[in-house]
Amino acid sequence: MAKLVSTLGTSPGGIFETYMNLREGNYEGDDVKPIDIKEVYVIRTSDKSVEFAWKLIKAIFSCCKREEVTISDIPLTMQDINSSEDFKKFRKEIFSRLNVGDYVDFTGGRKAMSVAAALAAREVKAHVITTIIPQNEYNRISEIIRGLKTMEDLVDRAGRGDCETIKESICKLVSPEAKTIMLI
Amino acid sequence: MAKLVSTLGTSPGGIFETYMNLREGNYEGDDVKPIDIKEVYVIRTSDKSVEFAWKLIKAIFSCCKREEVTISDIPLTMQDINSSEDFKKFRKEIFSRLNVGDYVDFTGGRKAMSVAAALAAREVKAHVITTIIPQNEYNRISEIIRGLKTMEDLVDRAGRGDCETIKESICKLVSPEAKTIMLI
Repeated sequence: MAKLVSTLGTSPGGIFETYMNLREGNYEGDDVKPIDIKEVYVIRTSDKSVEFAWKLIKAIFSCCKREEVTISDIPLTMQDINSSEDFKKFRKEIFSRLNVGDYVDFTGGRKAMSVAAALAAREVKAHVITTIIPQNEYNRISEIIRGLKTMEDLVDRAGRGDCETIKESICKLVSPEAKTIMLI
Repeated sequence: MAKLVSTLGTSPGGIFETYMNLREGNYEGDDVKPIDIKEVYVIRTSDKSVEFAWKLIKAIFSCCKREEVTISDIPLTMQDINSSEDFKKFRKEIFSRLNVGDYVDFTGGRKAMSVAAALAAREVKAHVITTIIPQNEYNRISEIIRGLKTMEDLVDRAGRGDCETIKESICKLVSPEAKTIMLI
């Protein structure tokens, strides 16, 4: 069973969209077909705003999906990639999680993370994908995130499956206009 | 003789700094030594603000360097990477310019461009590098760029070697705090 390995930055945008678009075979590339993803790994740094983006991702998967999927948090101790050592560590972490035929999504996080992820994917013969979110959608989503920052407790609860109170806001973080591209 | 191949986005930041830091052996990585770069290729899209960033780069190299170096503009017809075809085209363009031991700098441009550049570099056994510019420096530089947008004629002239009138502003676009990292 192939899994999805995604890098995460300060915005949760892209990861859930990539997951859904893979499942539904709604992406651009060669040999397009629905892909049965049952596991999602989220690789991220420990920066405070990235921690919050992880909470939002967890809440989105918990409140807005219809299928069974396991989502795992893989936080690295670094705050950012600031040295070649950080880069190697990040790349090695992704590499160690990958099998042939997995899907690596570099949409989230800093450029150096995206590059580390793509190089690791290439080494293992995993696929490389990304999801493009139009700027107006990105702005709309950023606005909702600003609001949700004032209710971190509710976001935490949503991540544990208690979605009722903020389900609507959480699911509005998903862009219906996202476009997923399989590059390799 | 190794050359530097850089991706360019809407900000000129990084390319000149990478060039200088390589020349001076002022970077982080294994086996650090001054690298005699005589040619810089700038690969970019045809977006209007990217065109202006190219003019700024040309002016910076023309007015602020001390050594002989050729800088070449390689504009692709695409506005952005919006499909797997665009990605392939971008990657192929970079690949076709590279030799073993060249330096590929993915600091500028969109994430998908950075990934295309790094994968092309890996394939040819070129080095992969990036330059980090602190946020406060990035903001300072963006402010100067906003000012220079109102004097595009002078920027054009500076690019042709007629630096006098705006040399000071142009050379302030170079960050003394930039840090270059050799990743591979």
